Amino acid sequence: MSNNDDRIQTARHSAAHAMAEAVLALFPDAKFGIGPSIEDGFYYDFDLPRPLTPDDLPIIEDVMRKIVARDVPFARRDVSKDEARVLFANQPYKLELLEDLDEDQVTLYTQGSFTDLCRGPHVASSGQLGAFKLTRTAGAYWRGDESRPMLQRIYGVAFDTEEELDAYLQKQAEAAKRDHRKLGRELDLFSIHEEIGPGLVCWHPNGGLVRQLVEDFWKAEHHKRGYGIVYTPHIGKLEQWKKSGHWEFYRENLYSPMDVDGQQYLLRPMNCLGHIMIFKSRLRSYRELPLRLAELGTVYRYERGGVLYGLPRVRGFTQDDAHIFCTPEQIQPEVIDVIELARFMLATFGFSEYQMVLSTRPDKYAGSLEVWEQATAALAAALESLGISYETDPGGGAFYGPKIDIKLSDAMGRWWQGPTIQVDFNLPQRFNVCYIGEDGGEHLVTMIHRTVLGSMERFFACLVEHYGGAFPVWLSPVQARVIPIADRHVEFAVKIEETLRDSGIRADVDERSERMTSKIRDAQMAKIPFMLVIGDKEIASEGASVRLRGGEDLGLHSIEDVQSQIRAAVKSKS
Amino acid sequence: MSNNDDRIQTARHSAAHAMAEAVLALFPDAKFGIGPSIEDGFYYDFDLPRPLTPDDLPIIEDVMRKIVARDVPFARRDVSKDEARVLFANQPYKLELLEDLDEDQVTLYTQGSFTDLCRGPHVASSGQLGAFKLTRTAGAYWRGDESRPMLQRIYGVAFDTEEELDAYLQKQAEAAKRDHRKLGRELDLFSIHEEIGPGLVCWHPNGGLVRQLVEDFWKAEHHKRGYGIVYTPHIGKLEQWKKSGHWEFYRENLYSPMDVDGQQYLLRPMNCLGHIMIFKSRLRSYRELPLRLAELGTVYRYERGGVLYGLPRVRGFTQDDAHIFCTPEQIQPEVIDVIELARFMLATFGFSEYQMVLSTRPDKYAGSLEVWEQATAALAAALESLGISYETDPGGGAFYGPKIDIKLSDAMGRWWQGPTIQVDFNLPQRFNVCYIGEDGGEHLVTMIHRTVLGSMERFFACLVEHYGGAFPVWLSPVQARVIPIADRHVEFAVKIEETLRDSGIRADVDERSERMTSKIRDAQMAKIPFMLVIGDKEIASEGASVRLRGGEDLGLHSIEDVQSQIRAAVKSKS
Repeated sequence: MSNNDDRIQTARHSAAHAMAEAVLALFPDAKFGIGPSIEDGFYYDFDLPRPLTPDDLPIIEDVMRKIVARDVPFARRDVSKDEARVLFANQPYKLELLEDLDEDQVTLYTQGSFTDLCRGPHVASSGQLGAFKLTRTAGAYWRGDESRPMLQRIYGVAFDTEEELDAYLQKQAEAAKRDHRKLGRELDLFSIHEEIGPGLVCWHPNGGLVRQLVEDFWKAEHHKRGYGIVYTPHIGKLEQWKKSGHWEFYRENLYSPMDVDGQQYLLRPMNCLGHIMIFKSRLRSYRELPLRLAELGTVYRYERGGVLYGLPRVRGFTQDDAHIFCTPEQIQPEVIDVIELARFMLATFGFSEYQMVLSTRPDKYAGSLEVWEQATAALAAALESLGISYETDPGGGAFYGPKIDIKLSDAMGRWWQGPTIQVDFNLPQRFNVCYIGEDGGEHLVTMIHRTVLGSMERFFACLVEHYGGAFPVWLSPVQARVIPIADRHVEFAVKIEETLRDSGIRADVDERSERMTSKIRDAQMAKIPFMLVIGDKEIASEGASVRLRGGEDLGLHSIEDVQSQIRAAVKSKS
Repeated sequence: MSNNDDRIQTARHSAAHAMAEAVLALFPDAKFGIGPSIEDGFYYDFDLPRPLTPDDLPIIEDVMRKIVARDVPFARRDVSKDEARVLFANQPYKLELLEDLDEDQVTLYTQGSFTDLCRGPHVASSGQLGAFKLTRTAGAYWRGDESRPMLQRIYGVAFDTEEELDAYLQKQAEAAKRDHRKLGRELDLFSIHEEIGPGLVCWHPNGGLVRQLVEDFWKAEHHKRGYGIVYTPHIGKLEQWKKSGHWEFYRENLYSPMDVDGQQYLLRPMNCLGHIMIFKSRLRSYRELPLRLAELGTVYRYERGGVLYGLPRVRGFTQDDAHIFCTPEQIQPEVIDVIELARFMLATFGFSEYQMVLSTRPDKYAGSLEVWEQATAALAAALESLGISYETDPGGGAFYGPKIDIKLSDAMGRWWQGPTIQVDFNLPQRFNVCYIGEDGGEHLVTMIHRTVLGSMERFFACLVEHYGGAFPVWLSPVQARVIPIADRHVEFAVKIEETLRDSGIRADVDERSERMTSKIRDAQMAKIPFMLVIGDKEIASEGASVRLRGGEDLGLHSIEDVQSQIRAAVKSKS
């Protein structure tokens, strides 16, 4: 952490104290929990005589600003535990914290009328809090324990300058507007139903179409690069998942087994099993390696209800998975190809900034030291030969092999988990996955698990937020909406729609008897890239007035012109 | 059944008796079970001192031919049960059959040395058996009861003339060659693994590619026709399947529930639930109807191990499913569109002969008599307006609505279950699936369940057998194989492969150091439509000698020529 980070975190912590002083001024009976600094700001937990409302926040903020204006010092004092017990006699949470401290002497900080049990450090005086804003309240169990009282938490954000604070708040507002859950409803993309079960996603026609287009693109690129695309079952005998080690190592994320003819079956948590069976369905020669089997494979993993979140954290998701069966010597060239494929595909969606992390051998591991060293060196060499700078996470690999994780930065500068490339020494051994070598003998293959998008659900959430719902033309569920100004223009509008559809463009007509401006607004809300307005003038010239969703008015164009514009945008995937 | 059918069935039955006489001649201690005529032939069950081998069949057949040559009469005789008991004193199975007969008098038939307990009728004499052949043996429990002795069954086929028999045997041989399980192995299309579980299919890259091409075609045609393509979860809370009635009515085909957070979840047997939830995710106006939601939805249904068979009878399969939410008035036009879509798609695969069956209201039914009558009339009217002749299966509908089933005839003249169109009055009511009508009030929708291909697994099996594995060019996993005659031709062959691949043609090169003829034979075995042979002459003229998988030699062609031939074949889907 830099000095600057230290300083702002100290100011955030002091802001929490100032907020506590303000709350004490408004609620003299307030009981205080804890009030730390956090990323971007701070919070404090209070036990108050009544629930807070959003209206309380500006009032508390006003009192805080008066405290800032008074510029009172933050004074540190060391006292004995006994003295502290007297001082906090009316503060049961502070007394409890006090009892948990081993030391005899404890530290107090006082500014103005408020004294807190606190190790510090703090700013010198309340004039140095910087720019801050209270943002929201939430319930929080004392010490995170559901059996203890529920306190009220107030969150605030704080930065060095008003400019930084404004930029942060603006970014937050933009992020809220782009939230894939909000846009998912507004653009009719997907839904999650308590009736079916939490974390289980229904993709609506609009979201399904975007997914299909992404999948079509994915399949075409994989075919080009010598992958075979397979389909394998979503269930399989539990004994195979015992053999693989999943039952032992990932049991808490597995669904409960089903009984079929007296045998236990499991909903698959990974796609490996089917791919291994396909590989083993006949004798394989070294000439067939590397063999690349890819699948848009839906897997089911149990996650606790509390961690489920929109599309990125769900209980069923479709991995854009592949397994590469190869020799140790082929790891490096294969990993280079995977990284290049991933970068090519992600660049198509406008992602160009990545963080790459190479995770190496943990203390407990499968396979020999030599194969680990060879594979880890191959991964590093692949990254280096592509001129990619990466971080190393020593010991961060899975027990079965080293891996590369790639995070991508979206249009808002936020990081999303993207591709993973994972070497596996474990499964080939457990399932005796062999090929016949040039020497005529059997050899274990090396397996590489890899995804380039991650999962369709998480990647789609990322896309929705990255584009703010305004998908590029090639991905837009509706590419062109024809908008007749009056009822007499509907017939021609429908003719244009048909012309566009016949040429493979996704078009519709807004036939409602609404005003043109409201039709245009609705089309903009639906983030439809092209609006083709049809009135008397347009019919006379057999064309359409073209408006873009950003508001640009491109004027009157012939239908051929519109078609070639849309087709060009689709082709360039821009 | 026509007179001719009667006559040949009688001859088949008599052939069974003749076979029994022959077996008795070879095994004087044989005990006899039953020996009926069946479709295309006959069988007889025997209890013999040793297991039969395939070598026994021609010997038995020889004895039968001698019986035919002797032209002995089939003599009928009525005797009392007591007389029969004496006659069959050494035939325990016959004695058991005898005890089950209510009558006092029973009928016997005797030809030559063999007398059977039999109602007849039979041919006049053994010279009239027609053309027959013994085909195979199989084990069969006495009276189909696993607790009774296992007898040996000999199957035979019989026809009026040698020509008919030959035609039948040839067709059978052709069918065996086309068996999708055999071709599935030979062409590396799919596999089923005991390790994962019976009835659970792994599609290999070759089979997966054909499936993907069929799915792409399916999706494109559905988008064109106003379907929205969705994706919904493979599991859901059991309570919804209780609500739907599946738990009550189809329980024996459902998997056992899984426990998630103390709630029971079920692997879905149908795709309806997710589609209903999508429909209900917001208020729907009559203006949105008909709403068509389609999904390539994988479902899991338990089938007893004994009925599992290749791809048509499995435990997990992907329906090309859709649900149309509509008003009762919209049933007829929607059904017309579905039938037209189905016929268009099936015609593309070369199916043009159909059997259509309309199944009507059973005794137990959901919904009112009026809606049943209206819906059944709508289905009938749809068929009639398309000029389709159909059979009616009175009372054959599901309890929730009438349906149309369509069977298709493949290139071998065999019938496959194809599209189904099923009206449903039950689910809309149980899930309160409503729209807001023009009158501003809530109305229940009518749902139509429909598939046009059935399931990807069964349809793929049908395609494999229909084409005998020689997929049309647009579906062929490899469309062109480049065959260099000698090693010095490999470089140019690879260049041609790349040219073809760059233009979107699925091509590969046989780089092995094998003789050209064996490379051609292997390509023919793999049913690759175009073989491009490259030698000195071809390199000199920058072309390729083109051979087709049927053996036709098209001579030397330029690469551009080859490309446009392949592209034309792909485009026409021929």
